[in-house]
Amino acid sequence: MTQPTKPDSTRETILATGRKLVTVQGFGGMGLSTLLKASGVPKGSFYHYFPSKEAFGQALLQDYVDDYLARVDAILARDLNGADKLLTFCDAWLDHEREAGLVNTCLVVKLGAEVADLSDTMRAVLDAGARALVTRLAAMLREGVADGSLRLQDLTDQTAHHAAQVLYAQFLGAAILSKLAHDPHPLEAVVQDIKTRLVTGA
Amino acid sequence: MTQPTKPDSTRETILATGRKLVTVQGFGGMGLSTLLKASGVPKGSFYHYFPSKEAFGQALLQDYVDDYLARVDAILARDLNGADKLLTFCDAWLDHEREAGLVNTCLVVKLGAEVADLSDTMRAVLDAGARALVTRLAAMLREGVADGSLRLQDLTDQTAHHAAQVLYAQFLGAAILSKLAHDPHPLEAVVQDIKTRLVTGA
Repeated sequence: MTQPTKPDSTRETILATGRKLVTVQGFGGMGLSTLLKASGVPKGSFYHYFPSKEAFGQALLQDYVDDYLARVDAILARDLNGADKLLTFCDAWLDHEREAGLVNTCLVVKLGAEVADLSDTMRAVLDAGARALVTRLAAMLREGVADGSLRLQDLTDQTAHHAAQVLYAQFLGAAILSKLAHDPHPLEAVVQDIKTRLVTGA
Repeated sequence: MTQPTKPDSTRETILATGRKLVTVQGFGGMGLSTLLKASGVPKGSFYHYFPSKEAFGQALLQDYVDDYLARVDAILARDLNGADKLLTFCDAWLDHEREAGLVNTCLVVKLGAEVADLSDTMRAVLDAGARALVTRLAAMLREGVADGSLRLQDLTDQTAHHAAQVLYAQFLGAAILSKLAHDPHPLEAVVQDIKTRLVTGA
């Protein structure tokens, strides 16, 4: 008989609170009671929106992937050459100052290995998100080679995709090393490596 | 009043069982009761060896790091040039066939992001292990440049360390992407990238 007056805002509150919690606690480590308490939402309300914790996890990751790709699309749409788009993405990723920095809140880093063995629906959402990001990074690389701001040997769609995949892998792995070391140096080393190898005249 | 007849073997049983469980379930996701049941060890015995779950996690990671570095040291000690040592490491990492393949059992991939926010003692063990591995990869790179089997621009101790760190980050990130995709291609792309960039005459 509950009639939420702002159903979407309740859903969004649960998702936003959940995103903050899993970024620190992981998905398995975040108890439902902790989430409900932090959201200020009763259990019945939660199950009104999400049939299970896994369904909630799937919605949370989809929401995250949509936001993330929108940020990357905004970079792609800017009036910049390919190298500057790539470096803008690097800056957004590295941004330590703001809580919104992509690396501190990256759920592929935080949850990728966890959900890969835990939930196939959650795994599929993150996998599709990672693939969509690699496609966008490959587009930046192709743009940069076309406008002369980036260098890549033997540019084809396949080599650009391959290079984008390796580049993204570098970021993810360096994020783990930086988290373990409590030190941004591994991430900075990767950005330096990208500049040295890919940016013409850097 | 318990007098275990084989104390070390009980400890080793708990550690070996725990390693298998956390490789799938993560550390937070592995309940102590599951571990005790799978090990066939009573709770009192567990607490005889480990004062807490965190202390157990720390011992488990130290045991893992020690084994891992021993495998890498065995590669370093072989009568091979630097490139072949690096490629032997790549093969060991990629080995899909055997359960003992480094990537399938890699606890830095599986637990790195989880324990970084969960336990400072566990984080410190994995961080020290990652640093020790980077040091060994840097040694392979320096050997390979010295014997002409690897190429690296402007070789110094610092650039070798930097290159080893980026190389290890690539592996870790590609392992996450391969886990998410249920597809070895991201890992194979990284090995191909290493061959193209670093191995002379490849």
